[in-house]
Amino acid sequence: MFSAIKRFLIGRPLKSTELGEQKLNKTKALAILSSDALSSVAYGPEQILIVLVTLGTAAFWYSLPIAVGVLILLTALIFSYRQIIFAYPHGGGAYVVSKNNLGTNAGLVAGGSLLVDYILTVAVSVSAGTDAITSAFPSLHAHTVGIAIIFVIFLTILNLRGVTESASILAYPVYLFVLALFILIAVGLYKVATGAVPPDLHAPIGTPIAGVSLFILLRAFASGSSALTGVEAISNAIPNFKDPAPKNAAKTLLMMGGLLALLFTGIVYLAYYYAIVPNAEETVVSQIADKTFGRGFMYFFIQGTTALILVLAANTGYSAFPLLAVNLAKDKFIPRMFLIRGDRLGYSNGIIILGLAAIILIVAFQAQTEHLIPLYAVGVFLPFTLSQSGMMVKWLKEKPEGWVPKFIINTTGALISLIVTLMFFLTKFQQVWSILIFLPIIIFLFHRIRKHYDAVGEQLRIAAEQPHVPIEGNVIIVPVAGITQVVENSLNYAKSLSADQIIAVYVGFEREEEKAFEEKWKKWQPDVRLVTLYSHYRSIIQPLTKFVDTVEHKASQHNYRVTVIIPQFIPKRSWENILHNQSSLLIRSFLLYRRNVIVSTVPYHLKK
Amino acid sequence: MFSAIKRFLIGRPLKSTELGEQKLNKTKALAILSSDALSSVAYGPEQILIVLVTLGTAAFWYSLPIAVGVLILLTALIFSYRQIIFAYPHGGGAYVVSKNNLGTNAGLVAGGSLLVDYILTVAVSVSAGTDAITSAFPSLHAHTVGIAIIFVIFLTILNLRGVTESASILAYPVYLFVLALFILIAVGLYKVATGAVPPDLHAPIGTPIAGVSLFILLRAFASGSSALTGVEAISNAIPNFKDPAPKNAAKTLLMMGGLLALLFTGIVYLAYYYAIVPNAEETVVSQIADKTFGRGFMYFFIQGTTALILVLAANTGYSAFPLLAVNLAKDKFIPRMFLIRGDRLGYSNGIIILGLAAIILIVAFQAQTEHLIPLYAVGVFLPFTLSQSGMMVKWLKEKPEGWVPKFIINTTGALISLIVTLMFFLTKFQQVWSILIFLPIIIFLFHRIRKHYDAVGEQLRIAAEQPHVPIEGNVIIVPVAGITQVVENSLNYAKSLSADQIIAVYVGFEREEEKAFEEKWKKWQPDVRLVTLYSHYRSIIQPLTKFVDTVEHKASQHNYRVTVIIPQFIPKRSWENILHNQSSLLIRSFLLYRRNVIVSTVPYHLKK
Repeated sequence: MFSAIKRFLIGRPLKSTELGEQKLNKTKALAILSSDALSSVAYGPEQILIVLVTLGTAAFWYSLPIAVGVLILLTALIFSYRQIIFAYPHGGGAYVVSKNNLGTNAGLVAGGSLLVDYILTVAVSVSAGTDAITSAFPSLHAHTVGIAIIFVIFLTILNLRGVTESASILAYPVYLFVLALFILIAVGLYKVATGAVPPDLHAPIGTPIAGVSLFILLRAFASGSSALTGVEAISNAIPNFKDPAPKNAAKTLLMMGGLLALLFTGIVYLAYYYAIVPNAEETVVSQIADKTFGRGFMYFFIQGTTALILVLAANTGYSAFPLLAVNLAKDKFIPRMFLIRGDRLGYSNGIIILGLAAIILIVAFQAQTEHLIPLYAVGVFLPFTLSQSGMMVKWLKEKPEGWVPKFIINTTGALISLIVTLMFFLTKFQQVWSILIFLPIIIFLFHRIRKHYDAVGEQLRIAAEQPHVPIEGNVIIVPVAGITQVVENSLNYAKSLSADQIIAVYVGFEREEEKAFEEKWKKWQPDVRLVTLYSHYRSIIQPLTKFVDTVEHKASQHNYRVTVIIPQFIPKRSWENILHNQSSLLIRSFLLYRRNVIVSTVPYHLKK
Repeated sequence: MFSAIKRFLIGRPLKSTELGEQKLNKTKALAILSSDALSSVAYGPEQILIVLVTLGTAAFWYSLPIAVGVLILLTALIFSYRQIIFAYPHGGGAYVVSKNNLGTNAGLVAGGSLLVDYILTVAVSVSAGTDAITSAFPSLHAHTVGIAIIFVIFLTILNLRGVTESASILAYPVYLFVLALFILIAVGLYKVATGAVPPDLHAPIGTPIAGVSLFILLRAFASGSSALTGVEAISNAIPNFKDPAPKNAAKTLLMMGGLLALLFTGIVYLAYYYAIVPNAEETVVSQIADKTFGRGFMYFFIQGTTALILVLAANTGYSAFPLLAVNLAKDKFIPRMFLIRGDRLGYSNGIIILGLAAIILIVAFQAQTEHLIPLYAVGVFLPFTLSQSGMMVKWLKEKPEGWVPKFIINTTGALISLIVTLMFFLTKFQQVWSILIFLPIIIFLFHRIRKHYDAVGEQLRIAAEQPHVPIEGNVIIVPVAGITQVVENSLNYAKSLSADQIIAVYVGFEREEEKAFEEKWKKWQPDVRLVTLYSHYRSIIQPLTKFVDTVEHKASQHNYRVTVIIPQFIPKRSWENILHNQSSLLIRSFLLYRRNVIVSTVPYHLKK
């Protein structure tokens, strides 16, 4: 039944050779990998105004130079990541770049931050999208957390179905959103040009403001640059592109950067010209749309696509998280299970764990985005800084032809990213301190896991010089619970193995019962030695283990192996298992994990 | 770590021979087994008044004859159960009595009702106790469900620690409650006698009332008799008493009956004399206490002990449920696991399942007692009726000396119990219909389980005439994932078993990889045959199972056995298991449960 539900939700399994069909073309890739970055224009400009409003509305003209700063940062990031795509065509982004150029620990800082960040991407985007919906339909407000969780589950299932299929569904909303905002900006600018908007609403550029300081301006800049989260997704997902993958990825990156720049500039400019004041009830985009179109079809079209793209932005996380996990797992820093492709060729374990972690975050933070965004931004700009510093080192080391402009691009990017990161720690320490505790822990775990895998590999390797010690003989122990077909079946098997000794062991809870059993046994199996053990604490495992230890100790001296044969009857229907005490399962796990004996289970299948 | 927590909560394990020390003396038994019945006086009288108030306060004098009816019922129950204790000294109560005298199905109806009823005992009592607390401290009202759940968890842990230890803790509140109510009744009666209470508050006995009908009076009687729930607990728990168990149990039963009668009569009389009107905000007992003492120390003492005894009444369920479950499990109607004594000699599985079920009920009904009480009462009076009918049949069949008065006692009890049961169905059908659906289902399950156990027993039995077919030989299959120490270890073991054939099986996901492996194998283990299987869907189990099926089919024709030897390396620390794909575990479970092959796991313990 479980597998039928799985089929319905996930679809039929795909053969490994069908992998090629799942690769992305540029149009679909733009939709899948850009929704996070593009959706940020829904809140990025607002973040700038929220800081500036503390100086008064006259200070809003500062949003224009700040936006220029963000655009410079964006340009630096886009060109830097374009260079990374060609330098690292197998993907990996910040993790691979930092690891190769700055050393393992820098790579792990970047990788660790990004892993967490993709979870935050899902949690933040879905929560923000849900907020947009519940703002439109206030009666749903009480169910915010539930709705957000449903969206996460929906996205998880989509992604388990496979990347291309998700893309077909997800491409439309992204393009509709871009279309909606372009119409908004175009009509808005037309109204500005024709004078339909009074030109005296906003304070002119250069108006002197009391109390303005570099600190506040940098803070506004840092807040605004939270709109650039998601820019790195493409460089992590190059293997998902159709061939030639790096070229297609680079083109997609440039398209995305261009769209993001246009939308961001348009929104910031209109917000300034319309003199929009941010408030908690209505978003800046909603206010611009309202002033441009009134509350008609276009208004709801813009709001609807905004809500949709925010929810789908979460999908960036679903594309990027499993691929980053694969890179980390290949380097043995996280469990191997992230390497396994599922029935539909996606990395199912990564997708499922991302979904679960996002749900936990949503529940813990009650789907309140404002508490998550600063942490989210730091988790993005830390790897930005590291990957671009890594590129700096790379150019300095390799010095290929024409490396100087490339070096300058990456240096600019690294410096601005570093400043943004530091600004978050300086101005929002209360919300981001946890990353300072969390990162060392995760990096410690990465190293711990790597150390384990290395140790295992070392121990499993077959060394040529190792002397081969053959096994001299076998001792078989059969725990028996009564005189039944199951036991007979197991004893017959034991006898067929031509072992040197077979010992049946019976654990009794009462002295008389023990004696009675011994006598019955003598009549039934006179040729098999029976050992009875008395259990003080009604436990079978304790006395049995003690006995096995004794036998094993003696056997190992003569290079004999000890096999414990466990008779087990298997009911016809699996629900019937709860009617039987699973002693054999317990005995098996206990002996196998703690003792050096072979555990063999002889099934006796019941016929009714 | 888990076992350390368990030790802390539950205490050290006890030897089976320490069982005697855990037996109850009369004083402790009275406290443990009577709290349910005694606590009922906190709400029993109120239930009568709630029905009568529909006729007007002048009708309250009817509470006195109705109380007499309840007392007659109580007397009949007490004497009937006294006879049951001596007739069935090994406990079992309604289940055993009904089964032995009326047949299996009657027994199962009684047993099924009681099993559910003990869960309701816990849920109702804990909820009522919590209500008493939250009434005293209204700020806690929002947390009713949470508090109730904490109480259930607390009681579960207490009972897992063992019966006697619980008793030491639980004895005080019960006796304090009895003391508190005796003081209340004595002082109340003193005030009545000295004329401190105006004698004209209540309508005199015999005042004619308009609209009175036998139906309403019977309904009031049925409601009032919900105060007798819990009377049967002692007869179910005879094995828990110190020797001579039946005599001690009978004495305890009489003591409990006497206490219950005195408290019940006193409360009903004072309520009538004080002309207490039941209301939703304040209980009847609280009103009497208020009028007698005012809101001073004695008032809070009475309210506090009432709340405490209600919570502890739930403990009756913890004493009775596991013992009834043992009786049902011995007769193979419920899973065998209820027979196992835990570390502290209590029947842990019964205790834990009771606690979980009660928590589910509390959450489902949001700790609202009023919706649970009718179901609870029906679940009690159904087995009352059955067990006393059973006793009637017993006397008629056996006709021992002086059986006529005994027969009359049981007949009276049976008739009144039947009337009460029917009254609940007639007057509160909306709240009790579910038992008519639930009981047939549970009885069907009982029979289903019994049938399974019987079938298993039949199949496991060794028949003398059965021909013995010896195993002719062994084929060993070793799934291998690479060329490692683990595989070598397993192959050495396989070779030592002198099997007729050893086949290594490799499942490849890519064609080239397969070829490369075959060549490496030829150099490494030229004497072991290697079969490589190609997996289209990245699954190891599917191709492996298909191969095992082929081999098994051929082997079984020659009476050969197939053993699948699974190489498994065991990490040193158990957390490290999540770092490795548990393929061997999956393969093992799959083959063992679905195929007729022996599965042998060869552990390779890592040293670091």
